[in-house]
Amino acid sequence: MTSAAFDFTKLLPPDLPAAAARWTGLAKYSFVGGNNDPDEVPVDGLIDAVTAVLRREGKALATYNLAHGPQGYRPLREFLTKKLKRDAGIESSADDLLLVSGSLQALDLVNHTLLSRGDTVLIEQETYQGSLNRLTRLGVNAIGIPLDRDGMRMDALAAALSDLKSRGIRPKYIYTIPTVQNPTGTIMPESRREEMLRLSAQHEVPIFEDDCYADLVWDAKRPPAIYAMSRTGGVIHIGSFSKSIAPALRVGFIVAPWEVMSRMLALKTDAGSGALEQMVLAEYCDAHFATHVPALTRALRTKLDTLMEALNEQFGTAAEFDEPKGGIFLWVKLPDNVDTQKLYQAALAAGVSINPGPEWSTNRSYSHSRLRLCFASPSHQEIREGVAALAEVCRREFGVPTRIANVEAPRATT
Amino acid sequence: MTSAAFDFTKLLPPDLPAAAARWTGLAKYSFVGGNNDPDEVPVDGLIDAVTAVLRREGKALATYNLAHGPQGYRPLREFLTKKLKRDAGIESSADDLLLVSGSLQALDLVNHTLLSRGDTVLIEQETYQGSLNRLTRLGVNAIGIPLDRDGMRMDALAAALSDLKSRGIRPKYIYTIPTVQNPTGTIMPESRREEMLRLSAQHEVPIFEDDCYADLVWDAKRPPAIYAMSRTGGVIHIGSFSKSIAPALRVGFIVAPWEVMSRMLALKTDAGSGALEQMVLAEYCDAHFATHVPALTRALRTKLDTLMEALNEQFGTAAEFDEPKGGIFLWVKLPDNVDTQKLYQAALAAGVSINPGPEWSTNRSYSHSRLRLCFASPSHQEIREGVAALAEVCRREFGVPTRIANVEAPRATT
Repeated sequence: MTSAAFDFTKLLPPDLPAAAARWTGLAKYSFVGGNNDPDEVPVDGLIDAVTAVLRREGKALATYNLAHGPQGYRPLREFLTKKLKRDAGIESSADDLLLVSGSLQALDLVNHTLLSRGDTVLIEQETYQGSLNRLTRLGVNAIGIPLDRDGMRMDALAAALSDLKSRGIRPKYIYTIPTVQNPTGTIMPESRREEMLRLSAQHEVPIFEDDCYADLVWDAKRPPAIYAMSRTGGVIHIGSFSKSIAPALRVGFIVAPWEVMSRMLALKTDAGSGALEQMVLAEYCDAHFATHVPALTRALRTKLDTLMEALNEQFGTAAEFDEPKGGIFLWVKLPDNVDTQKLYQAALAAGVSINPGPEWSTNRSYSHSRLRLCFASPSHQEIREGVAALAEVCRREFGVPTRIANVEAPRATT
Repeated sequence: MTSAAFDFTKLLPPDLPAAAARWTGLAKYSFVGGNNDPDEVPVDGLIDAVTAVLRREGKALATYNLAHGPQGYRPLREFLTKKLKRDAGIESSADDLLLVSGSLQALDLVNHTLLSRGDTVLIEQETYQGSLNRLTRLGVNAIGIPLDRDGMRMDALAAALSDLKSRGIRPKYIYTIPTVQNPTGTIMPESRREEMLRLSAQHEVPIFEDDCYADLVWDAKRPPAIYAMSRTGGVIHIGSFSKSIAPALRVGFIVAPWEVMSRMLALKTDAGSGALEQMVLAEYCDAHFATHVPALTRALRTKLDTLMEALNEQFGTAAEFDEPKGGIFLWVKLPDNVDTQKLYQAALAAGVSINPGPEWSTNRSYSHSRLRLCFASPSHQEIREGVAALAEVCRREFGVPTRIANVEAPRATT
C-alpha cells in the first residue's frame, strides 16, 4: 500500500466485542476446550463411509441441502431418530429434527428465537462458557442455580422461579446440561428431571436441554432425556456429534416442536449446514455408532484415571474433585488463595493451558480457585507431564501444593 | 402428549421473521437459487481427495479447527492465496484469510462488524436477495445504485455519496458484486473499478466486494479484484467455493485487513467452520481447480445457450435479456403487465420455480416484470420443457407471449 491505510475505526459499532488476538497455536500441554482423543477418530471408517456416500450421492452436492430441505440430510435425521429413541427415550420423526453447524449454532438459533435484550433465563451456576458468553452478548440476565452431585438443585430452582414470579418476571427458559454436566460431570437423576418438568409446567417456563456430552457415560446407561419425559412439549433438546465422533466436524442438531422449529428455520439463513459432513456422519453412524462410542468412552475413562492419579500425585489434597460420570472434563478445586485466572496466564507461559473457573460460572467467588481440565485431547504422557508442570507453576505462583504425594515438596515453606 | 401442549407464543420476541413453511421439495423445473450442475460435481476427484487427506490428517479432526486456529485449515488458505493472486491479482498471505461457512457467513460477519440499526449502505439496485434480506433484518437503510451493462453506474454512485454527505450521512460500505453480477451477469471494467476506488477514498467509505461468481467467466479473463487495486486497504473481499465446486459444501472466505479481521474473529463464535469440507477442498483444488473450472464453465455456457434459445423460441420478443458474461443466472424482462411475484405462484403450481425480480432489487417498479432464472441446475431438456411450461403459464395468466417463434400463438388475441 502506497497511500495511508484506510481507517475502519470510526465505522465500528460501539458495542463490538474486543478484537481477537492472533492465533499462536495450542499449548504444549493443552487441557482446554472440548477437543477429543486423536487416536479415537475412526479414520478408516470415515474414509469408507465418505467414499460410499459420495459414489452413491455425490452429484447431489450441486444442490443446496442436497435437495433434502433446510432441516438437513434426511438419512442423518433418520439415524438420529433411532439413536435418540434408543439412548434417550425420545420419540421423534425426521421432521422434528434440524441439523445445524455444531451445537453452537443450536444455541444461537434457540436464543434468537426466544430472547430479547433485558430478558431473564435460569442456568446452572457452573455451565458451558459458550452459553454464558452468548447470554452476556445478548444482554440477557442469566441467573445461576447452584449444583450438587446430582446436577442443578431443584430447591434452588424453585426458589429462583418463585422469587422471579413475585417480581413479575417470567424467565424465557431453564437451560440445563443434565447428562454429563459441563463442567462438573454430573448426571441428573430421573426423579430430579421429573421435578424440573413439574416446576417448568407450574411456572410456564420451557426447558432448554443441552445433551452435548450425553453419549459419553461410563456405565453406558443414562436417564431418559427431559425432552422424552415431557408431556407438554415444553422442552427444546440439542445435541452434537462433536463429542461422539469429532469436534472439527461441525454437526449438531435440535429437536423441537414445530412452533419453535418453524421460527428457527426462518432465522437459519445460512443456506444449510455443511452437507458432506452430514453425509459422512449418516453413512458412518448408521453402521458403527453403537460400537464406536463404547470404545471411545473406555479410552476416555482411562485418561480420566491418568489425570486423577497425576493430580493426586502432584497436588495431594490441594486438588479436590468429584469423579465425573462421563465426558471429557474434570472440574477441580485448588486452595482458596489460587486465582485460576492468574494461574491461566502463568501456566500458559509454562506451556500448560487450562480453563479458569470464572469463565464457566456465574459465581465469581465460588469459581475463582476452580478450573476445568480436558483429559481427552492430551496423551497419557502429556497428562502426567502437564499436571506436573501445572503443579510447579502453582507452587511458584501461589505456594501450593506444599506436598507432592505425601513427600515434602522441595520449595515447601512449612 | 397427554397434557395441553406448551404454548411458546408469548415467549417469542415481537420482531421475529415469519415462521417458515414446511419443506415440500424442489419444483419439477427448478430455475431458482444458486444450485449448480449435478453432472459437473467432480465426484471421483473429491473421493480421491478426501481419502488422501483423511488418511494423512484424519486424526486432526479430534481438535477444533484441526489445530489450525480460528481462521481455518491452513492448506486451503494457502491454496486461496495462490488462486487469488493468479485470478484476481490479490496479494495476500494465509493470515489475511478467514475460512467461513459459505459466503453467507461472510456477509453476516462483515455486517455485524460494521453495521448498527439505522445505518446506511450503498448497494447495486439489482443485487443478491440474501444481501438485501440481511440488511432489512438489521434495520439498515440500503440505497440501490442503478446498473448498466458495465455494472454499478459511477455517476449514480457519486451522486448518492454527495447527496448523503450533504445530509451528514456517512454510509458504512459500498456493496458490489463486480465480477459476474448477481442477477444481471455483468462484469465491471477495470476503469470503473478505479473510479469506484476514487469515490471510496474521497468519501472514506469502504468497499465490500462480493466475488462469489467470479470464477465462472466465459472468456476465462477477468479484471483484477477491486481489493487488488486498492492502495489504502479500504476493501473487504469475499468469495466462495459454492459456484466453482459445489454449493452444498458450505465453504467461503473473507480477505480483509487485520483491523477488520480481528473484529470478525471475535464475532465468529461457532468454534470453526466444517473442517472436513475445508480439507477435501484444499486437497482437491490444489491439484484440479485450474482444470475443473474451465470444464464447468464450458458446460454452463452450453446451458445458457439452451436457455436463451428456449426463451427466444417460446417468448419471442416478449422476453428481453442481455447475455451474461458468466455465472449461472439469466436476468429476464417480461412485458410490463407481467407481475413476476404473481407469476411465481402460478408457475409453481405448474411445476416451474423462478425467482421474481422484486426479491432481487431495491426498486419495485423497475423489477416487477423481471425475473431471475438459474440455468445451471436443470438439464438441457428440463430447461426446454420448463421454459415452455413457463410460457404457457404467462400466456394463461398475463396474455403474453402472444407469439411463439414468430408463429401466432394459439390463444393470441391480436
